[in-house]
Amino acid sequence: MPVNPNASIEITAFRWVPEFAQGLVRDLRARWALEEAGLDYRVRLLDQQRPPEYLLEQPFDQVPCFTDGQVNIFETGAILQYLGETNEVLLPRNPQERYRAIQWTYAALNSVEPAVLNLLLIDIFYAGEEWAKLRRPGAADFARLKLKRVSDWLGDKQWLEGDRFTIGDLLMVTVLRFLRHTEIVSEFPNLADFVRRAEARPAFQRALSDQLAAYEAHEPQAA
Amino acid sequence: MPVNPNASIEITAFRWVPEFAQGLVRDLRARWALEEAGLDYRVRLLDQQRPPEYLLEQPFDQVPCFTDGQVNIFETGAILQYLGETNEVLLPRNPQERYRAIQWTYAALNSVEPAVLNLLLIDIFYAGEEWAKLRRPGAADFARLKLKRVSDWLGDKQWLEGDRFTIGDLLMVTVLRFLRHTEIVSEFPNLADFVRRAEARPAFQRALSDQLAAYEAHEPQAA
Repeated sequence: MPVNPNASIEITAFRWVPEFAQGLVRDLRARWALEEAGLDYRVRLLDQQRPPEYLLEQPFDQVPCFTDGQVNIFETGAILQYLGETNEVLLPRNPQERYRAIQWTYAALNSVEPAVLNLLLIDIFYAGEEWAKLRRPGAADFARLKLKRVSDWLGDKQWLEGDRFTIGDLLMVTVLRFLRHTEIVSEFPNLADFVRRAEARPAFQRALSDQLAAYEAHEPQAA
Repeated sequence: MPVNPNASIEITAFRWVPEFAQGLVRDLRARWALEEAGLDYRVRLLDQQRPPEYLLEQPFDQVPCFTDGQVNIFETGAILQYLGETNEVLLPRNPQERYRAIQWTYAALNSVEPAVLNLLLIDIFYAGEEWAKLRRPGAADFARLKLKRVSDWLGDKQWLEGDRFTIGDLLMVTVLRFLRHTEIVSEFPNLADFVRRAEARPAFQRALSDQLAAYEAHEPQAA
């Protein structure tokens, strides 16, 4: 669904971010899930320097926050689960399938993302520092090990639990995308295919395009 | 409830771990939630060298796995949510309160734990390495910043969302316990009180005692 200024669902996102972060900022996860669920939403754009009172909404000063007038939450895992509750597309109702999907949201965010994000930070934010140069090989191997675990599990399945795409797949793909500045994902052909399959979904394409459109519209002018 | 070999709920845990990890291993989270919910459980103890087929249950080779004969899952966040569904003690039913609690499970595991665990790894596993010495001050400051965010949010509330203890508090406390080898938590008196308040709960005490009892029973003998 298009972004709709009159929608009852609101998420927060950044007005603009530097190029290395474009297409990676976490509001993409909420946008993607909203598109999959066919729900209209509006976006409250924030400057990178957030007002101090934003901490009362999001104690970690990050995006996105979510509200639909009934439930106000942050953390993309929680937002995706809530959207999954309201729309079966993303979260099966059968208890075993439901909790397998929920389990993969935690696996993406806790068992995989820390290793992946650590490498991203080393390569992007700390690239010039001596410790980062010394740590880089070990950090890359640790990220590789986590990806191997996911790859071995995935095997030749389409999605993490079989034929059905869930919020667990959605989050895992957004985590793997944090390595797009490297060739590490392509060392695992089934994971690379998994990411491509997910990125080919029309809902992902719309979500990405809407995130990037905001950045384009607010591109800082050269001084 | 006591550990009961005939219970229908089973979790996996380690037979023994080195002292630095005792009281921190993640089966403690499941044990604690089971105690809070008043549910009997049995424990399948694993050697630190897990059999290769364990990866089919837990792709990241970690503990705990959970089954009650109906739902088989891993990831403590998912296990705690499932236990919360079956028992209102840990997860409120009102949608806003429910999703706030769920949100804090993700905040604990994704917004706080990576910074905290990074410092633990630097101090315990990588202490002798040059990069770890160079990185330690920055990693400690980053963990401190995350704790400040939680501390500012908590203020003088008893639990993260007010008067009611939920699975979000349970997970946050277990994350903060990863810093017990430092004085960092005590730099935030309200967080230190929050941890003490949680650890004083009888359910926590029983869970900890049962985890440690297994290690004591399987202490390796000196050669």
